[in-house]
Amino acid sequence: MESRLRFRVLAEDGEARVGRLATRHGEIQTPAFMPVATYGAVRGVGAEDLEALGAEIALANTYHLHERPGEAVVQGAGGLHGFTGWRRPWLTDSGGFQITSLADRVEVAESGVTFSSALDGTRRELTPERVIAIQEALGADIAMVLDECVPEAVADRARAESALERSLRWAERARTCHARSDQALFGIVQGGVDHELRRRSARETVSLGFDGYAHGGLGLGETADQRRGALLEAHVYLPPDRPRYLMGLGRPEDLVRAIDCGVDLFDCVVPTRHARHGLLFTGQGQIVVRNARFARDERPPDGDCDCPTCGRYSRAYLRHLLQTGEALGARLATLHNLRFYLRTLEKARLAISEGRFGAFRDEVLARAALREG
Amino acid sequence: MESRLRFRVLAEDGEARVGRLATRHGEIQTPAFMPVATYGAVRGVGAEDLEALGAEIALANTYHLHERPGEAVVQGAGGLHGFTGWRRPWLTDSGGFQITSLADRVEVAESGVTFSSALDGTRRELTPERVIAIQEALGADIAMVLDECVPEAVADRARAESALERSLRWAERARTCHARSDQALFGIVQGGVDHELRRRSARETVSLGFDGYAHGGLGLGETADQRRGALLEAHVYLPPDRPRYLMGLGRPEDLVRAIDCGVDLFDCVVPTRHARHGLLFTGQGQIVVRNARFARDERPPDGDCDCPTCGRYSRAYLRHLLQTGEALGARLATLHNLRFYLRTLEKARLAISEGRFGAFRDEVLARAALREG
Repeated sequence: MESRLRFRVLAEDGEARVGRLATRHGEIQTPAFMPVATYGAVRGVGAEDLEALGAEIALANTYHLHERPGEAVVQGAGGLHGFTGWRRPWLTDSGGFQITSLADRVEVAESGVTFSSALDGTRRELTPERVIAIQEALGADIAMVLDECVPEAVADRARAESALERSLRWAERARTCHARSDQALFGIVQGGVDHELRRRSARETVSLGFDGYAHGGLGLGETADQRRGALLEAHVYLPPDRPRYLMGLGRPEDLVRAIDCGVDLFDCVVPTRHARHGLLFTGQGQIVVRNARFARDERPPDGDCDCPTCGRYSRAYLRHLLQTGEALGARLATLHNLRFYLRTLEKARLAISEGRFGAFRDEVLARAALREG
Repeated sequence: MESRLRFRVLAEDGEARVGRLATRHGEIQTPAFMPVATYGAVRGVGAEDLEALGAEIALANTYHLHERPGEAVVQGAGGLHGFTGWRRPWLTDSGGFQITSLADRVEVAESGVTFSSALDGTRRELTPERVIAIQEALGADIAMVLDECVPEAVADRARAESALERSLRWAERARTCHARSDQALFGIVQGGVDHELRRRSARETVSLGFDGYAHGGLGLGETADQRRGALLEAHVYLPPDRPRYLMGLGRPEDLVRAIDCGVDLFDCVVPTRHARHGLLFTGQGQIVVRNARFARDERPPDGDCDCPTCGRYSRAYLRHLLQTGEALGARLATLHNLRFYLRTLEKARLAISEGRFGAFRDEVLARAALREG
């Protein structure tokens, strides 16, 4: 098929690669990190802030937007690009993970997922077709197929296998009904950490044909080696000219390890959620800026950072704002952590282009071992 | 005495006047509005935002900062200008109003105010001298004397009179102990809405000699005419070359009415607090943007506004953010309302300079009668 998403690999260093993803709403340098804008907004952070931080694509949650304000409202405003202030590329997830983790009385059948809304308790069903219809209405540049999320797949091979098979059938249904020619659709590779299952899922998902491929069901307690194995097994079968997306992960070192396996796209709530709890990533390791030891620390959160927070505010002031529950504290911490993530990926792209990614990876992993806070 | 605050009246139109207040940390065009930064931050809004909105001075709460992080922490960081990101002029209130409204078991004696901390329940005393010492440590450009706040003074003349007399004795103690030569100190005129008491308070406060004078005990249920009377009676005795500050008020029409009486400085939580509840001020009257009628309204909050919110976001998106409790909603609404206030004062200054303040005032009052929401 003719892909709805142009992707070009520009440089490689081992498995790691730098690429350029072109959408109607702008280009994305990969490896890229997508800030999570659950309801179409990153907590406390505007589209103008994301632009200033250097974000090139954002992720919104289909399940949340379906509940509020409803996809019809978003579609009526011209989709996510018209409804929100973010005019650059959007990716929407399928909602499967949110249903599993947030909704009550979830029942998974061959037709789809039935659940009680976390918002109003009403009984609802989401099918692979319905999830595509919602995402077509939301109008993101990249949509995801609905998959069966089984957190226990890491430990339970039989459960992983049945979820894999159902996810493949659902992927085919999604692929068949997806009609928007200006929206890319990604398939999702499943199979827990079992090499044979990962290979099979990758092979069969690719045979259905998608614009890009995601790794699902990781970041659920597996070891770094298990994850690496799962990614590399799948990558044998994923077409090198299509983007690869590791869903929902992780800490900076997780991203760098995955880039080392050839992953191109990431999203995660870690930088934003941790920020709200006062945990900041810095070039010297992480700090819990809420701690009393920072009460009189007049240094910026990270002396080497070019974010607006580090340019003007001290650790002592951030601590004070977080202690008093001032909304500005969460915002300033979020701006910093997002910039830290985006900058880590900028550095990774440069390191790959210059053929020194291995050294960069080792540096990030060494820093991850530090815990200043 | 040589004033620690240079103030020059540049233009007058009736009682209304345009002036320039010069502090170590920058000049303030008056009439000016001071955004309220309770703990040294406007809720969800950074110093860079306040600068972009055109604010020239901000107000912080002595009582709140005394409790957290404590004035020693702020002083150690170089005062409010060093501790926060706002390097422009600061004014600190005396804390009297906050103690009365927030603390438990408040006892007022001649020595000062004893109360139980709203934060940890400990018994504390604030005297006129202690309040000055705290404010000297906080290091604002303008400090306020402690006064006895009696909300019932509007209705009870005897109560107003005794509070007035005690406030005068406290003002003298504050005046005597205040030592920072780089910090201005304002006295506070009391007396409820009784013309004779207001005159007496103004006359005797002026005889103590302060760098500027505030109107206290207003905005507590009096009519617009009562307030106008109270302001004008005091202004007969306040030196025209000293700034006049109406504390804690109000809606745009309240500000314009007070400017009409010759007031130069304002602070109020209305624009920021109302914003968090979804009430927006616009050139066509106020709207409650949370209302369902705005769910699909793709217009900006105010078509004539030059704020960052109106430049990028729709009423529908703001409504959605406020409905879902997204912190960005409160922030964007706050940015808009603050800009609306600051712009109202910009327009007032221009109208005064051009000798057409009466027409401008009438326009604002007519708009206040509209309620779109």
